[in-house]
Amino acid sequence: MSRRFAASALHEFVASALERTGARPEDAGLVTEGLVAADLRGVHTHGVLRAGIYVTRLRAGSINADASLSVVADTGPVAVVDAGAGFGIAMAARAMDLAADRAAAHGAGFVGVRNSNHCGMLAWLAMRAVALGMVGVAISNADSQVAPWGARTKYLGTNPLAIGVPAGEEPPLVLDMATSVVPHSRIQAAEARGEQIESGWALDSKGRATTDPAAALCGALLPFGGPKGSGVSFMIDVLAGLLTGALSGPAIAPLYEQLDRPQGVGHLMLALSVEAFGPKAKFAARVDNLIREVRSLPPAEGYDRVYLPGEREHLSMLDYSRNGIPLPDHVVEATERLAAEAGMDAPQPL
Amino acid sequence: MSRRFAASALHEFVASALERTGARPEDAGLVTEGLVAADLRGVHTHGVLRAGIYVTRLRAGSINADASLSVVADTGPVAVVDAGAGFGIAMAARAMDLAADRAAAHGAGFVGVRNSNHCGMLAWLAMRAVALGMVGVAISNADSQVAPWGARTKYLGTNPLAIGVPAGEEPPLVLDMATSVVPHSRIQAAEARGEQIESGWALDSKGRATTDPAAALCGALLPFGGPKGSGVSFMIDVLAGLLTGALSGPAIAPLYEQLDRPQGVGHLMLALSVEAFGPKAKFAARVDNLIREVRSLPPAEGYDRVYLPGEREHLSMLDYSRNGIPLPDHVVEATERLAAEAGMDAPQPL
Repeated sequence: MSRRFAASALHEFVASALERTGARPEDAGLVTEGLVAADLRGVHTHGVLRAGIYVTRLRAGSINADASLSVVADTGPVAVVDAGAGFGIAMAARAMDLAADRAAAHGAGFVGVRNSNHCGMLAWLAMRAVALGMVGVAISNADSQVAPWGARTKYLGTNPLAIGVPAGEEPPLVLDMATSVVPHSRIQAAEARGEQIESGWALDSKGRATTDPAAALCGALLPFGGPKGSGVSFMIDVLAGLLTGALSGPAIAPLYEQLDRPQGVGHLMLALSVEAFGPKAKFAARVDNLIREVRSLPPAEGYDRVYLPGEREHLSMLDYSRNGIPLPDHVVEATERLAAEAGMDAPQPL
Repeated sequence: MSRRFAASALHEFVASALERTGARPEDAGLVTEGLVAADLRGVHTHGVLRAGIYVTRLRAGSINADASLSVVADTGPVAVVDAGAGFGIAMAARAMDLAADRAAAHGAGFVGVRNSNHCGMLAWLAMRAVALGMVGVAISNADSQVAPWGARTKYLGTNPLAIGVPAGEEPPLVLDMATSVVPHSRIQAAEARGEQIESGWALDSKGRATTDPAAALCGALLPFGGPKGSGVSFMIDVLAGLLTGALSGPAIAPLYEQLDRPQGVGHLMLALSVEAFGPKAKFAARVDNLIREVRSLPPAEGYDRVYLPGEREHLSMLDYSRNGIPLPDHVVEATERLAAEAGMDAPQPL
């Protein structure tokens, strides 16, 4: 059984580890909030597990502790910011907040981010706009791991997409997905457990379909949904990477390699004012109605009921904020390693 | 072998058929341009094949020949228009043009469209922005045909998405996709030919996976890419339907049923000024570079080379505009039926 940890204990530990390494409190606070939010939603691949690599990159200088957002282009509804190779999560959060400011003033706000680093779970970014009653969209490019449809070698990143929509009485709709069939971490997990992977997840180094995780790790992930998902991934690289003036595709440094240089990732944040389109209460009621209609559809064979985008994660969040977060063992071990390196006490389970 | 038709002959025929039924020349011109553009790109499901149902709906009054766009909300960068149950293609094209105007002034322009009808091939809409050097994004909801992930019955439409990006010397990137695995028309075609469909395309009326096209036509299409594509489809219904104040999900009238009432479809058009983000020439050169790098990747087994989103359709367009459009027989027959009904000569092949 997983041990459960209070969100507050994880928050205190991670923020402290980041600050001891030189992060400013305001950056450490945002990064930690983003990481713990992922664990609260059960998305442990993007939770406190990542604190270690952020500390490593901070020490190596490839995350710049002194960075601040600088605006390099601005029309009002559209701005582009340079993240100065700072913390991706903190910079992306500020960019979304800026997009929301612009949406409040103009109806819509786009903020492109260049010269950034890994920005964590996009759902958390989209939900910053949702918390203000807005629609939030977050996309980011990422280092090359995915073969475009019809290619035998990797080129695209897992280029994720999140869309958050405020509801009325119901929890918000929050879609958050990588554009690969599965993330890299899932292949690594299969290899660690000595399991096969499903055909259709990845290619080997010669571009052949493989069920061997070790072969897949030398090859390429496949895009979700065949040519359609491949196309979506392309467009995310173009919009979050090329349009913002960030790096793109194979030019991006992987999170766990080339530790001495910033990743150069790009993001694009969009906030949309619901009120710009019409009465807010009417929209909220219609979203509620859609949620309830879909939730009451008869489930397909093998399903207990139909879940809306982000609904399972929302239920996890309700459970875990009350009863503690059941961290997988490898995440607990990662916090223990980080604690030992930083000369701190590791967070203790409840 | 398919017979080839000059684009100009198809254009003259369809525009004339629409005008004889009461369409204003400016509407007939836009609708016809959109339909012929689809045939030129080889997307015959959305080409002149559709002229017949538009004429039928025009006669029935569920496409309103006198409709014009009326602006119901406007912040500058965000506007919502009521399409007055007019021609979906014409109204959506005007909405994209308005979005481009707004993007030219503000950097970004969103135009939501409510009270509309089937708006044809979204690629053509996105390409209106691309022709102005902008990024164009078009989404539309559609009548209920697709089971949300985990449900046994249909709720969502095939809710398509198009994204167009201008390049420099290379042709533009144009992604255009339904969010179902395959369109309804592909199941119908399999039934007509007495063929099985692939497992994973559709459910039967009891929510079970089926390879029988007849059973699938009584059941539901499946979303592309499993829960991810289902989530994208949801968000398109929310943004193109609920946010714009259009109908959504099962409330939308199918194109070929309930012919006496407007479909009530909603669209959302987005134009983004490339210059708002940075120098246009630099972006164009980077898009060209991405296209060339991807095109030169080694192809996977069974592929001759890697194609970019919209590249095959672009190659068709180059061929067909020079050498004529090879219309499938069932499309030719549809034009002959329409000609007979309208007392016109059917277009003749080259």
